[in-house]
Amino acid sequence: MYLDHIAATPLHPKALEAMLPYLKENFGNPQSLHSAGQEALSAVEEAREKVASLVNASESEIIFTSSGSESNNFVLKGMALALRDKGKHMVLSAIEHQSILQSAKSLEKLGFQFSSVPVDKYGLVNPEDVKRAITKETVLVSVMLANSEVGTIEPVAEIAKVCHSTNVLFHTDAVAAVGNIPVDIKQLGVDALSLAGDQFYGPKGSAALFLKKGTRLFPFIDGGIQEGGRRAGTENVAGIVGLGKAAEMAKIELENRIQKIKPLRDRLIERFPQKVERLFLTGHPGKRLPHHASFVVEFIEGEGMLLNLDMKGIAVSSGSACTSRALKASHVLLAMGFDHALAQGSIVFSLIEEITPEDIEYLLEVFPPIIERLRKMSPLYTKYLEEKKK
Amino acid sequence: MYLDHIAATPLHPKALEAMLPYLKENFGNPQSLHSAGQEALSAVEEAREKVASLVNASESEIIFTSSGSESNNFVLKGMALALRDKGKHMVLSAIEHQSILQSAKSLEKLGFQFSSVPVDKYGLVNPEDVKRAITKETVLVSVMLANSEVGTIEPVAEIAKVCHSTNVLFHTDAVAAVGNIPVDIKQLGVDALSLAGDQFYGPKGSAALFLKKGTRLFPFIDGGIQEGGRRAGTENVAGIVGLGKAAEMAKIELENRIQKIKPLRDRLIERFPQKVERLFLTGHPGKRLPHHASFVVEFIEGEGMLLNLDMKGIAVSSGSACTSRALKASHVLLAMGFDHALAQGSIVFSLIEEITPEDIEYLLEVFPPIIERLRKMSPLYTKYLEEKKK
Repeated sequence: MYLDHIAATPLHPKALEAMLPYLKENFGNPQSLHSAGQEALSAVEEAREKVASLVNASESEIIFTSSGSESNNFVLKGMALALRDKGKHMVLSAIEHQSILQSAKSLEKLGFQFSSVPVDKYGLVNPEDVKRAITKETVLVSVMLANSEVGTIEPVAEIAKVCHSTNVLFHTDAVAAVGNIPVDIKQLGVDALSLAGDQFYGPKGSAALFLKKGTRLFPFIDGGIQEGGRRAGTENVAGIVGLGKAAEMAKIELENRIQKIKPLRDRLIERFPQKVERLFLTGHPGKRLPHHASFVVEFIEGEGMLLNLDMKGIAVSSGSACTSRALKASHVLLAMGFDHALAQGSIVFSLIEEITPEDIEYLLEVFPPIIERLRKMSPLYTKYLEEKKK
Repeated sequence: MYLDHIAATPLHPKALEAMLPYLKENFGNPQSLHSAGQEALSAVEEAREKVASLVNASESEIIFTSSGSESNNFVLKGMALALRDKGKHMVLSAIEHQSILQSAKSLEKLGFQFSSVPVDKYGLVNPEDVKRAITKETVLVSVMLANSEVGTIEPVAEIAKVCHSTNVLFHTDAVAAVGNIPVDIKQLGVDALSLAGDQFYGPKGSAALFLKKGTRLFPFIDGGIQEGGRRAGTENVAGIVGLGKAAEMAKIELENRIQKIKPLRDRLIERFPQKVERLFLTGHPGKRLPHHASFVVEFIEGEGMLLNLDMKGIAVSSGSACTSRALKASHVLLAMGFDHALAQGSIVFSLIEEITPEDIEYLLEVFPPIIERLRKMSPLYTKYLEEKKK
């Protein structure tokens, strides 16, 4: 049973089907002038149209990249360099993905400055805080659309308004959101947006950056004239085609997927806190990704729960896959006010379409005994029980 | 008939076979701690071993990227930033790929300086010229191993020696070479080397950078801890697996491929100048890629030849795919001393393994009449004929 949507989704069978010809007979380079090249180019441009359509953008506003992390690096570094004569300050939220936070650290070494906006206990950014953080030197604000660790959906449209009222560009990392909730760049009012195929049943290695027409951006990969000269390198044709097909299917299937998954997710959010004491929902109870249920479990560590569930054939996450092997407490939970010990007890159930009600019932059965077993080994839990008896 | 190896090769059937499980059931994120993640991680690490083995490197010296262009950007920008306290000068050859040359232009905007080393009429760099170009400020020399437009193989081992005698790091863009000629990083003595799967029957979107142990490099994509923290982003698992398998197959099959393709290529180099007047081989006659035959044809343009051959079902190139749509005269041919007019008449036949002797005979039949037809429309050719008569 796979409950780790936030780490990666399976590839949609229709996306694979669309990709296969480009892994077989249609192997041309889109930049070649002959028929084999033209055929590949058409496929890339058709995919661009589909990705654009999913977020209500124009084709010319979509730049293909190799990952959500690349899109995030691209926009931060590309705007920092393009706008460095205008100012060298950017505003980020405290719960951004590492690809944003670490890009900022790299840019700091080159003389750029960053302000971090806090979040409340639900992980929500207050647009007023963004307003206060903006200075005359600010060229970009970047706040994610949805957080993959706690599921919270941010008030991005409001934040975009704040930015535009002060003539500052606004980017949103929508990697966890696009394809999982309706996303419309015009409704959100964003200037740039990152998305990744492997978050909505597309292939790994294929992602995109939406960049509003006329927005300046320093190229990320210099070289050939691919992607309008902003992102050189031979196109990953099959990957791009798969991303396009996944975008098309997301547009068609999104509503049904949510209707199917959300009640199952709701059952986890309702039942687990009833079944297990000192287990708390993380993230906002309402404003959250429909496939996402995240908790902290006191007295034990996420990794232990994860590995024990894995032995039962259940794949879950204890946070962001990008940093899971680093085994640090999540910066997201710490920013939300959880202490280090509690933050270590993080566990995320993120549902893919294939999950059935039976799967959920099975999970509700097997998880509480695992927690019990792990807690028996925890001196903190023993202490807690003793104090409780008093 | 596909004769555009330098733009892209078809995917090896065994590479596709190896990739498919990772496009279907094994869709885990390599950074996930559960079994699905472990399985994906093992596949990535196995591929790393195979890529390392192809160039005689250690696994820990291979960083996966999404294209040869990315590898080239990564090493130039990454070293510029990592070594900027040591010096801000680099040396390049005049015939480097655009991903090197344009990276240099971007770095110039940030205060770095570049010296360009010339080439002779065969496109060969003289190591002595490299020596002369190195200053106290030089931190990196980058000279390609083989040029995809003219096929010339550079004296990289000698250039590496020159660099190391002055304590300067040396990178070679081996994208056109790896998998097509034997490449051994120890014999070459390079500190960094770029390679790309789509140049040796691997998938597009999957490439690598060899970086010698202990060599400093600023990360290119910041974020998670993938690729040792130097290139973040969820791994393109299927693409990496395909690259690994292609590397394995290249190691096994390389000698046979060369034995099969080289005589066919030699026949083109021998016969075309006999069949067509004012047609000249470009690049070095002996020191060249075994699948590569490139010419300039006086009085006509490469694009016209390419499109006419395409109508006969023959796919060829008139230069680098990365810039073909820009329709400019090749900087490589200009650097080799060809004038603009002649450089416009560039045509490259690059053979893939599937090419048969019959294909080559067919090409030898159909190409000369195409040239004749195009020349009839050329005022320059008419003038040439008139002057010849005198």
